[in-house]
Formats: sequence, C-alpha cells, structure tokens
Amino acid sequence: MPAQPRSGCAINAAVEVLGDNWSLIVLRDIIFGNRRHFRELLTCNNEGIASNMLASRLKKLIDEGLLTRADAARGQRAEYSLTEAGIQTLPVMVALGTWGMTHRETSRELTIRSRLMAEDPQLVDGLMDELRETHLGVPRPNPDAPRSSERLQAAYEAEIAGS
Amino acid sequence: MPAQPRSGCAINAAVEVLGDNWSLIVLRDIIFGNRRHFRELLTCNNEGIASNMLASRLKKLIDEGLLTRADAARGQRAEYSLTEAGIQTLPVMVALGTWGMTHRETSRELTIRSRLMAEDPQLVDGLMDELRETHLGVPRPNPDAPRSSERLQAAYEAEIAGS
Repeated sequence: MPAQPRSGCAINAAVEVLGDNWSLIVLRDIIFGNRRHFRELLTCNNEGIASNMLASRLKKLIDEGLLTRADAARGQRAEYSLTEAGIQTLPVMVALGTWGMTHRETSRELTIRSRLMAEDPQLVDGLMDELRETHLGVPRPNPDAPRSSERLQAAYEAEIAGS
Repeated sequence: MPAQPRSGCAINAAVEVLGDNWSLIVLRDIIFGNRRHFRELLTCNNEGIASNMLASRLKKLIDEGLLTRADAARGQRAEYSLTEAGIQTLPVMVALGTWGMTHRETSRELTIRSRLMAEDPQLVDGLMDELRETHLGVPRPNPDAPRSSERLQAAYEAEIAGS
C-alpha cells in the first residue's frame, strides 16, 4: 500500500509516484517497446538502467498499482502487465516528451513518436486502447481502425531509413 | 550547464530535469501561488519542503534554465522568475494532476484547478500567457480577455466556501 500522501494536491500525488529518475523510463519501455520481462527491460534500455534499480522500480510500480506481475511457472520468465493506472501515464509522457524535445537536445529518430503524439491526441487515445487490449484483455472499441502503434512504428522506421 | 543526457529520447530528457520529488512542486508553487521569494516558497509549501532541499532545487532549476534569479539589492530579497522553459512545464503539471486526481486520494479543494484545466485547454494557454506577462514582461495577446488565473481562483474560492 502507498504511504500517506504529503498533501491532497493532485499534482503532488502524481509526483510522489512518478517523480523519480527511472519510473517513467521503465513504463515508457513497457508501453512503447512492449517489453514484458525483466531481462529485456534491462538489456534493451537506452539509458543503461542498472539491474538493482530496475528491480526496485518494478517493485515500486507494482506496490503503487501501476503494474502487475504474473508469477512464472518453473523455467518460465515472470511477465509484467500495465494496469489502467499504468496505461494512463501515457498522456504524462506525451507532455514530458513535448517539453523535452522543445527545451533539450534530443535525437530526431527518438523524438518522432513524441512529435506525432503531440500533434494528434487521437493517436494517444488509440494507443491506450491497444494497451488495454494487450495488457488487460479488453478488446479495442474499433477493431477495424488502423492501429496507432503501427502508424507510430512506420513513422519511426521511415525516420531511421531517411537519416 | 546541464550534463550530457543519458539518451536522445525526449521523454528521458524531460525526466532528467523534472523527474525528482520536488522540482515540479517548487515550480507549481511559483506558477499557481505566485511565490517569488525563498521565504514564502519555504513557509507556504503544503508538502513541508525543507530549507536545504528548496535551496538545492532552486539552484538546479536555474542551472537547467527553468528559472532566473534577480540579484537582490542590499536589504532586499532575491526574486525568482520563470523562463519560457519553466512556463512550459504547465502542460506537464496538468497531465500529472489529471493522473493524480484519477488514481490517488486527493482533496476536493486542491484538485478543483486541476479539474478545470484538464477540461479546458484554453485555460492552460491563457495561464501561460499571464505567466509570460508576469515573469518575462511579454504583454498578453488578448489583454481584454478574462484572466485564466481569476477564473481558477474564483472556482477555488467557491469550492472552499461550499465545503
């Protein structure tokens, strides 16, 4: 259970859970990289997260109700899933990405997705629907609509190919 | 000067600057409380920030280009001002406030402003224009339009009076 909050302020409540150097980075890798296992979260991370840090962030995110962990059968790897609260951190990431690409040095390839999402809120909503399907088993409301993830991935690959 | 970022990712770039337990809280107090001096930032803070923590956060926010500090004349207090990068943290706070009031226990009085801003992006834009006037001396584009800050303050006071 989370501890008593420092105040009743909604911004503070979010900062207490998400306001550290790694929690949002781990969530980003799960959301955009679809990494569900400890090993890939560790080895594929662009910022070089350390193993003990990853373990402590995953534990915190479970304790705070943003992730769940499926117990692994013998010889299998434990799988992490986003909860609804975890999925709803996506708009926070979009806002942070917009700030980061405006006020900091960033690379063109690694900001293309942030740029597209900043421009098109429907892309963000569509991606959240996909995450609900993948992580919570809730079917997408418009299964015939093009997938936001495919649009983002295509834009990313075009950016890589052109650079 | 900020150090070299851990990666070229825009979300990471923002997390490196804003991803701690206090930076966004100090910015929130400057933005919504119009607190410009060390003493009021310390004594009016709802979360009980410690003096040495406040000093270190203010220094970091200046180093990272989100605040400036006007040297105080003898017997006067130094005044902090937001930069454009500091003002543009407002949408991040709105996204965090929306997440916090949805997924955490918060108080009704302290979330009324977050609720209004989540519902009305124009309110956020208007508040940023006011901040540019107050902190950067840039006149508001629509000086005759009602002030977002007054609308937010009136809603907050109505909430307090009715509770």
